[in-house]
Amino acid sequence: MDQNDQKHAVVLLSGGLDSATGLAIARDMGFVCHAISFDYGQRHDVELTAAAAVARAFGVVEHRVVKIDLSAAGGFGHSALTDDIDVPMDREVYDGIPETYVPARNTIFLSIALGFAEVIGAGDIFIGVNAVDYSGYPDCRPEFIDAFEKLANLATAAGVEGSARFVIHAPLVTMTKAQIIARGVELGVDYSITHSCYAPAPDGAACGHCDSCRLRAAGFQSAGVPDPTRYAPEAAG
Amino acid sequence: MDQNDQKHAVVLLSGGLDSATGLAIARDMGFVCHAISFDYGQRHDVELTAAAAVARAFGVVEHRVVKIDLSAAGGFGHSALTDDIDVPMDREVYDGIPETYVPARNTIFLSIALGFAEVIGAGDIFIGVNAVDYSGYPDCRPEFIDAFEKLANLATAAGVEGSARFVIHAPLVTMTKAQIIARGVELGVDYSITHSCYAPAPDGAACGHCDSCRLRAAGFQSAGVPDPTRYAPEAAG
Repeated sequence: MDQNDQKHAVVLLSGGLDSATGLAIARDMGFVCHAISFDYGQRHDVELTAAAAVARAFGVVEHRVVKIDLSAAGGFGHSALTDDIDVPMDREVYDGIPETYVPARNTIFLSIALGFAEVIGAGDIFIGVNAVDYSGYPDCRPEFIDAFEKLANLATAAGVEGSARFVIHAPLVTMTKAQIIARGVELGVDYSITHSCYAPAPDGAACGHCDSCRLRAAGFQSAGVPDPTRYAPEAAG
Repeated sequence: MDQNDQKHAVVLLSGGLDSATGLAIARDMGFVCHAISFDYGQRHDVELTAAAAVARAFGVVEHRVVKIDLSAAGGFGHSALTDDIDVPMDREVYDGIPETYVPARNTIFLSIALGFAEVIGAGDIFIGVNAVDYSGYPDCRPEFIDAFEKLANLATAAGVEGSARFVIHAPLVTMTKAQIIARGVELGVDYSITHSCYAPAPDGAACGHCDSCRLRAAGFQSAGVPDPTRYAPEAAG
């Protein structure tokens, strides 16, 4: 708590559409926002550049980037997001857990965010997971978030001293992509600076064909909002 | 699972008395053990040297050391284990959460162990936490372990596909230090190679006065087992 008794929140920021909207919602709720991003060997660092742009645009009080090297622990497994595995393209149907799943990723990210929150005295953590228009990741479901919140309140000094209670906010979890975009537009999110593509061109342009691009494009269309995404030339059609 | 259908376990190994006993118990239960240790900027690396010695003594199939740099996220907070804060000495009474508490440490360690376990196909994770002769850490309590197990089974592919179920083993959680030592001696643990001291001499000798040394020494005495700890000369008396 600072002098004005404002509440502080830690916001997980990937640079994507969802987490940018989550940050906008946290700010709209009156939180002083501390953004945290992770450099975990994702194949492209366009994400982190976008995260920094979003953090700047929303005037967070700080933006921390934590480097995680899990190569000694099997990396993050074999994922199309971290390894030389093909990102699935132009899929109509999402069947099971896709190749882009990164084992225990959100658990690890939330754990580190929890430690950060405890250190700075923030009681609220925001994560932009979504269980509707998502790609089948187990750690994006509401029951995962609920279980983490319960854990957070047992894992920390707050749980022993009863001094505070952690709340894990996943404000997008039951929203469609179109609803997320509509809410973000209301809150002034500039989606042109966000990045969602799993397989961007070297200059950061979106491929237009991976699961993430397709969900995003369909969301803009469904929301009736012009898609501001910069696509790679070959993405047309 | 390997060809012989042996079950694999990930064992968190700090190099201390408790985690060494946890490893001995995991091996005694028939698990093929994969040890994992963390280099998180603890003030002394005597711990990691001890962890390596314990891993060798027990013939684990592998020992991974994961370096975690959380300096960008507030470090691990202000803890006497990571910062220039005095380690409490010669305390008779443990009141509240001590200066050696490291925010969210076990949550972060277990999360990374969970990712490692999912990558290698291990369904069991061992952690040597203890809620009896412990130092008042919130993340050493049975309810924390139960909450993490529940989380683990929601966070991973196993929770979606129903293909497997993670079990978090905390075999020492309700044992006294004397019971832990007695069980370890039965299982052949050589406690002379373990390290528990929070404030060791540069050569690794134990101080004999911190909470951890005092709990350990009292445990050996109570178990009627000669204390094999090498104490610093000034620790006498």
